[in-house]
Amino acid sequence: MCFSEYFPVFYVLSPKDQSMLASRTALRQIKKGTMLHRSGEDCLGLLLIRSGQLRAFISSPEGKEITVYRLFERDVCLFSASCIMKNIQFDLFITAEKDTEAWLIPLDVYQDLSARYAAVANYTNELMGARFTEVMWLMEQILFQSFDQRLASFLLEESAIEGAFTLSLTHEKIASHLGTAREVVTRMLRYFQSEGAVRLSRGAIEIADEKKLLDISLRR
Amino acid sequence: MCFSEYFPVFYVLSPKDQSMLASRTALRQIKKGTMLHRSGEDCLGLLLIRSGQLRAFISSPEGKEITVYRLFERDVCLFSASCIMKNIQFDLFITAEKDTEAWLIPLDVYQDLSARYAAVANYTNELMGARFTEVMWLMEQILFQSFDQRLASFLLEESAIEGAFTLSLTHEKIASHLGTAREVVTRMLRYFQSEGAVRLSRGAIEIADEKKLLDISLRR
Repeated sequence: MCFSEYFPVFYVLSPKDQSMLASRTALRQIKKGTMLHRSGEDCLGLLLIRSGQLRAFISSPEGKEITVYRLFERDVCLFSASCIMKNIQFDLFITAEKDTEAWLIPLDVYQDLSARYAAVANYTNELMGARFTEVMWLMEQILFQSFDQRLASFLLEESAIEGAFTLSLTHEKIASHLGTAREVVTRMLRYFQSEGAVRLSRGAIEIADEKKLLDISLRR
Repeated sequence: MCFSEYFPVFYVLSPKDQSMLASRTALRQIKKGTMLHRSGEDCLGLLLIRSGQLRAFISSPEGKEITVYRLFERDVCLFSASCIMKNIQFDLFITAEKDTEAWLIPLDVYQDLSARYAAVANYTNELMGARFTEVMWLMEQILFQSFDQRLASFLLEESAIEGAFTLSLTHEKIASHLGTAREVVTRMLRYFQSEGAVRLSRGAIEIADEKKLLDISLRR
């Protein structure tokens, strides 16, 4: 699989710009746990994910975190180039949740192409629109859903991502995804266990009844 | 003041496109209370606000609302054209909070210009970036601030918008801005009154001590 398949506007470019872009784009190996972006500090460029998993989150001054979205294979990490986008002024952190392989388009290259090709600028719009939609979805979850629904949805999503019913997740980590305190997570998980939806053990959560968890996530 | 001053990329266009745009753009009078946009139903076009005030909000299936942002003179209402933007898939409502006068650029015109001019597409990026930043700010408020801080900030902001210390606002209305229940607002306002920060009367809230309100909004 080559780079052009991950960058849908590649063939819009002139042959000259295609070779320029191809020669300036590099495949990067990113170790799990690497902090890729810390608003206002790093501005790496556009990352096109070939494999792996990134996590974007915001953090309070006291260190409370909440996961805003995740990026997987074939997703593009736009906000690692946020410094070239006018009006984007918020503190977003991006880390590698798994070992990740990604093509990096340098800032100056992407900025140059955006200025010259309407198709590239519109592609940025599409990417931003996708992230905007995810953020609005999250906002609705936070505002309009109860915590039991959010936690049930989160466990089902994790299970789908990992392709497994047993999740190696600490309560602390779940709290950081959902923007709450560890105690709140522990209390709700114990309630889920008493309902037979999950089974808890040291450092792991097993989904015992997927249907029951789905019912919780959907109830009003 | 003419239209071109409200649309910064106007002079990037060819003379022919300038006249086309000018001839297709119409000044609209929008009465206070008008629902301008209901996701998935209306798709009006780009609105450039000459005077007045718009409010964008989301709503739960049960009708609970929260104000996401507001638009004032010289702001551009992008999401009233959301149907032409790929990947924007969330339910946003936009209403006129005051009598509003705005230039309307029809959908097909804006779509055509975005496809042909990188500058127009990049301008859409800027607009989306500005709204994205406001939404992320709101998310941080909801997640990381306590309700007394949010309410104090809201009252100060309203006072700045209206240029007055007495605000004609029901507790119900404030609840719809902040995404909470009326009782929660009433309780907190009474607490503010007992602290001497506000004075409450039927249908109105008077800011009695701006400094005190500011202190509340900033404390951690």
